Amino acid sequence: MAFKENYPSKLLEDAVDAISSLPGVGRRSALRLALHLLKQPVENVHHFTMAIDRLRDDVKYCRHCRMISDDDICSICADRSRDHSLICVVESVRDVMSIENTGQYRGVYHVLGGIISPINGVGPSDLTIKELVSRVASEQDDMSTAPAEVILALSGDVEGETTSFYIYRQLSQFNVKVSTLARGLGFGDDLEYADELTLGRSIVNRQPFKV
Amino acid sequence: MAFKENYPSKLLEDAVDAISSLPGVGRRSALRLALHLLKQPVENVHHFTMAIDRLRDDVKYCRHCRMISDDDICSICADRSRDHSLICVVESVRDVMSIENTGQYRGVYHVLGGIISPINGVGPSDLTIKELVSRVASEQDDMSTAPAEVILALSGDVEGETTSFYIYRQLSQFNVKVSTLARGLGFGDDLEYADELTLGRSIVNRQPFKV
Repeated sequence: MAFKENYPSKLLEDAVDAISSLPGVGRRSALRLALHLLKQPVENVHHFTMAIDRLRDDVKYCRHCRMISDDDICSICADRSRDHSLICVVESVRDVMSIENTGQYRGVYHVLGGIISPINGVGPSDLTIKELVSRVASEQDDMSTAPAEVILALSGDVEGETTSFYIYRQLSQFNVKVSTLARGLGFGDDLEYADELTLGRSIVNRQPFKV
Repeated sequence: MAFKENYPSKLLEDAVDAISSLPGVGRRSALRLALHLLKQPVENVHHFTMAIDRLRDDVKYCRHCRMISDDDICSICADRSRDHSLICVVESVRDVMSIENTGQYRGVYHVLGGIISPINGVGPSDLTIKELVSRVASEQDDMSTAPAEVILALSGDVEGETTSFYIYRQLSQFNVKVSTLARGLGFGDDLEYADELTLGRSIVNRQPFKV
């Protein structure tokens, strides 16, 4: 059904324009959300918009790993119990949260802030690759915090592979191990439904059977 | 998959809390939206929040029909070419927009602002029923704008029927025709898949065949 847009109020139209600029929110949902906000007490709406403004205005990025943080150094980098010789390179803040949620990683991170993508006009200089390199370089002098390994935890598509390769080349001058995530069938995955590339890599990179 | 919540920043957590308070937005989507907003230029984010604040702070409700409006009287009530003797009673602003989009109605509206629902604690006094009654009553004196007909365009569920009946009783003291929307099979609907209530009403309220 076509949805003609005949707003009874310019204010409503502006709000729908703003809300529908969010990714994955169509104009119909935006109208629903705008009318929902209109029904809420004024304080709630101000609380809502203030939380968003404050996030954008006041959030900081960790001096070490570029993770978002409330302080100059994020809670992960500030944690002395973590292994600072292990740096996991990820694309975004969400990836850090995902890996943290596994509870399987005790090293630190480096957030690139994106991925090399010529189509989207994102080059190496738009990411925090230089900061990663200088982080590895500067720490080479001080043996106590020298990174022993950099894990490239980027996506497995062409852009991720390109970015991984670029970083690998940049780090090859240093005495640091560079590794990448294991890829293969997911736990519980059925062979029948796995794509050929994943299944192929799973066979090539087979692991010793553990009991 | 469980989604543990380990936010790297209180500001981010507050924003996710705020965004996920919207209907139909889970915490995962809220996080995605918050991180999207974080990547936008500051001006865009302020424009976004300002549009919402202004909607809530500055929107007006039409003095006649309680439709949202930028002025004291909405564009529909201000339109002299519309039939002011015909008042269509609807639950919400969205219903007005839906009916306007059909292009089939040239009367005016009355927005109740909800529906009688004892479960949700909404009684007649929470709606603009009194305003509707006084609107019908006051206009009885002035024959030029006397409403000839009130159309109850409420939903067909128990709450809608209850509200319709309540309003019908309130208006019975006045010399005004009260009608309701035609219900039946939708255009293009298949008999096989219609629910029995709808199909039953379609048979009872059958219309003369027109060619």
